[in-house]
Amino acid sequence: MDGYLYWRPASRLTVLAHLFGIIAIVLLLVWLLHFREGMNLDSDNPFRIFNVHPFLMFFGFIFLAGEAMMAYKTVLAARNVQKVAHMFLHLVAITLGIVGLHAVFKFHDRANIRNLYSLHSWIGIGTFSLYILQWLFGFITFMIPQSSIDGRARAVPWHISGGRALLYMAICAAETGLMEKVTFLELQHGRETLLVNFLGLAILLFGITVDVSVALARYR
Amino acid sequence: MDGYLYWRPASRLTVLAHLFGIIAIVLLLVWLLHFREGMNLDSDNPFRIFNVHPFLMFFGFIFLAGEAMMAYKTVLAARNVQKVAHMFLHLVAITLGIVGLHAVFKFHDRANIRNLYSLHSWIGIGTFSLYILQWLFGFITFMIPQSSIDGRARAVPWHISGGRALLYMAICAAETGLMEKVTFLELQHGRETLLVNFLGLAILLFGITVDVSVALARYR
Repeated sequence: MDGYLYWRPASRLTVLAHLFGIIAIVLLLVWLLHFREGMNLDSDNPFRIFNVHPFLMFFGFIFLAGEAMMAYKTVLAARNVQKVAHMFLHLVAITLGIVGLHAVFKFHDRANIRNLYSLHSWIGIGTFSLYILQWLFGFITFMIPQSSIDGRARAVPWHISGGRALLYMAICAAETGLMEKVTFLELQHGRETLLVNFLGLAILLFGITVDVSVALARYR
Repeated sequence: MDGYLYWRPASRLTVLAHLFGIIAIVLLLVWLLHFREGMNLDSDNPFRIFNVHPFLMFFGFIFLAGEAMMAYKTVLAARNVQKVAHMFLHLVAITLGIVGLHAVFKFHDRANIRNLYSLHSWIGIGTFSLYILQWLFGFITFMIPQSSIDGRARAVPWHISGGRALLYMAICAAETGLMEKVTFLELQHGRETLLVNFLGLAILLFGITVDVSVALARYR
């Protein structure tokens, strides 16, 4: 099985995490494409530019970051394969997250809205900056062969706790983002509100099942 | 030291958690008493009734729940004292949380607003219901002498992971609540927005430092 990834059949929580993640992606697409204006980073309609932001921040950033966490702990593979998959999926998450952030700054620019005034934007930009730092710190500590084994062992609990905190911070950013958009649109009832509420729940349950599946894998 | 609580000097993260918790309580009070209408559960002004809700949901529910988590893992005391303190602080958190929930239902009733339509309310009521279930489950499993040792050992990882998920769910509920209120008030700049953003950050940092201090205590 060297270098070959396959799923440990017992990790039902991982299956649940994927289920919630995929439900969230589907609900997000229904919301943005059916109820909202669709997505296009080069549109004349600023709202179509904006819509790229929630899609990439969940599918690109949060979903792939969750996959990266689960790839390390719940997929049976050679240790090096797990590490490289973990590092690489986080790198893709960072890249797509940057495009998602670009979308909202471009929207603000077009619609003449100030940047970074809301609680959502503070939590979001704080999470993303610390996430990049965590990636750099992890790369230097765990991927460069020269680092000392003792230093690695001491860094592990901080890397795990920090990563988990960042996962939940990203979930908080997503929930406040949905809350801001929905309150701004003054949706109070109807199918769109229900859809966004279920989307928020699916994102929250994705975060929880990723965390718990990774945590319980450590107890085995 | 039997039955006598004192602080382990090394747990600097616990000190940080208290610092963030107290900062959040102070910012919350400045916000509700200075910028908003004040608090009174029996007022004629529905907004004064409402303001009891954010105060009790943070100070009563989240802050005391965090204290309960830290009391078990980071305070040196006889095991039974730790357990009873943990159980009792969570019980007080539930009690004050119920009063906090009563406040917002009473406000909706007075101001003729529908209950439980927003994402914030869904996350909040879901978190609170699961929190009560977790308390009952914990009480039956860990406090009743008849339960089997083997059953307890199997329940521990789930109790820990579930408790942590509930802590972050409560933080998400708080952040979405602040986001809803601020977007509803159409605050976009000025001192009140800044105050609420710093309040949101303090609540988030309280949650993270509680989680990480409890998690790192387990690695020792």
